[in-house]
Amino acid sequence: MYDFSADSADCVRSVEAGLSDVLTGARLSGPGPAAERLVEAMRHGSLEGGKRLRPLLVRQAAAIFSVSREAALPAGLAVEMIHCYSLIHDDLPAMDDDALRRGRPTVHKAFDEATAILAGDALLTQAFAILADPRCHPDPDVRVALVAELAAGSGAGGMVGGQMRDIEGEEGSFSETDIATMQAMKTGALIRAAVRMGAMLGGADPRALSALTAYAEAAGRAFQLADDILDVTATQEAMGKATGKDAGAGKQTLVSRLGLDEARKNLDAIVADAISALRTFGPRADGLRATARYFAARKR
Amino acid sequence: MYDFSADSADCVRSVEAGLSDVLTGARLSGPGPAAERLVEAMRHGSLEGGKRLRPLLVRQAAAIFSVSREAALPAGLAVEMIHCYSLIHDDLPAMDDDALRRGRPTVHKAFDEATAILAGDALLTQAFAILADPRCHPDPDVRVALVAELAAGSGAGGMVGGQMRDIEGEEGSFSETDIATMQAMKTGALIRAAVRMGAMLGGADPRALSALTAYAEAAGRAFQLADDILDVTATQEAMGKATGKDAGAGKQTLVSRLGLDEARKNLDAIVADAISALRTFGPRADGLRATARYFAARKR
Repeated sequence: MYDFSADSADCVRSVEAGLSDVLTGARLSGPGPAAERLVEAMRHGSLEGGKRLRPLLVRQAAAIFSVSREAALPAGLAVEMIHCYSLIHDDLPAMDDDALRRGRPTVHKAFDEATAILAGDALLTQAFAILADPRCHPDPDVRVALVAELAAGSGAGGMVGGQMRDIEGEEGSFSETDIATMQAMKTGALIRAAVRMGAMLGGADPRALSALTAYAEAAGRAFQLADDILDVTATQEAMGKATGKDAGAGKQTLVSRLGLDEARKNLDAIVADAISALRTFGPRADGLRATARYFAARKR
Repeated sequence: MYDFSADSADCVRSVEAGLSDVLTGARLSGPGPAAERLVEAMRHGSLEGGKRLRPLLVRQAAAIFSVSREAALPAGLAVEMIHCYSLIHDDLPAMDDDALRRGRPTVHKAFDEATAILAGDALLTQAFAILADPRCHPDPDVRVALVAELAAGSGAGGMVGGQMRDIEGEEGSFSETDIATMQAMKTGALIRAAVRMGAMLGGADPRALSALTAYAEAAGRAFQLADDILDVTATQEAMGKATGKDAGAGKQTLVSRLGLDEARKNLDAIVADAISALRTFGPRADGLRATARYFAARKR
């Protein structure tokens, strides 16, 4: 019987330990010694806190193919570093201008803007160094496929492109399709990459990869819709970051379009879609099933 | 007989065409369509202008192993994208606060700060997508080695780490060793990666790779020292960017330490070191020899 709380807590612990291990001056890739201030900022922006949902998705997808938690960790760390760098850059004054993240000062508040920009750049780069390392997977074909997948999920056609669309959307008027495209890129693309990378670690065949991609795309939509609902309903205290921001910024979400009740109904349907995409996998996909349900049920 | 001007001009043309080809919305990696504004900013920050010295080093190192110009191009584009992203981020108000680059408005001036941050992030990410693509090299072992090399050259232990040290140096007092370490990382690490990536494309054995690394490290020192000398001696008009900035910012360079005459003597010695590291390679290394000489002789 799959235990989501236990698996999730174990993932949080191993990601924390894994990031802490990589993010020391001596371990960071490059010919020279990383500046101490840079390493501190990278640690501030990635350690302590965070639900580590993307590494959890990597390990849960990998588990379908009997890949161990340990073997799925490096790829999970790479995805999490991308997530963390994106938060550091998103929090900058020129972007969302946030002072608080996970209940602590954001990197540019704890350090300064230049350091935050560089810490983000360094985390982004380190993510690819981790994937290229033989400890990530013994087969170079798999490692290079992971690099391609993470770049696709996080680049101009993925996360960063979605962030750009989000900023543009604050100025213009967005259709429901525009919002869906923006969210599929901004949040969905990295979730999609996490699931697919887990599948790749396990040597998934094209059919399994396609089913897991369908799962991931629905799970990503569920995650974002739940986030938009929480922005309206949750308190800042529970979230550890500012809430009510979307409405305050005049930002258009599916919740502002559909209303809260309709949005909640949609959320249930999307979670059902995600779970139905897993039907061929049996109990080894219980982890992914539980995470899709968690996305909809979470309170923060 | 090797013709530096012709090879360099050809490299500028093919890098320009190659970047323009990759940097269209349809070609950028990811599940969604890249936002037009993001693509425009990526193009503004990387097309038209730039001496393309790093792709030139990739092709020249690769030429030692009979790798064609065409086959060396994708790796060269990846290195150039890293260089261009670093300029976009360095120019930001929180960093060097430059309004002018290559005689044109910097990306945050032509667009805005948020767009410049994202365009830099997207170029960084796209560089790794290019290396992971089979068109870069047929052997996944080589592609994954290129990813590792570029990440090492550009991350916390390389270029970004050097940038952090440079910022710290504006506040404290730097020894000559501190300056050398900072410059070896900030400028040297990416030049080193470019040369080594060219060697890797050609399947260089460890001995050849080691000799080329020695060349690259000396060439990188020559490049930076020449840059510091130009900052003192050249006009803004010739450089297409602000000069005299180092002294204005109280920034410590080897020129401010050694004086101009001593710095010029050092430069000649370093170029001689670079060229002597190539002694086993014969005429196929004439490209790299010419570039080392060019680094010292360039007027902008």
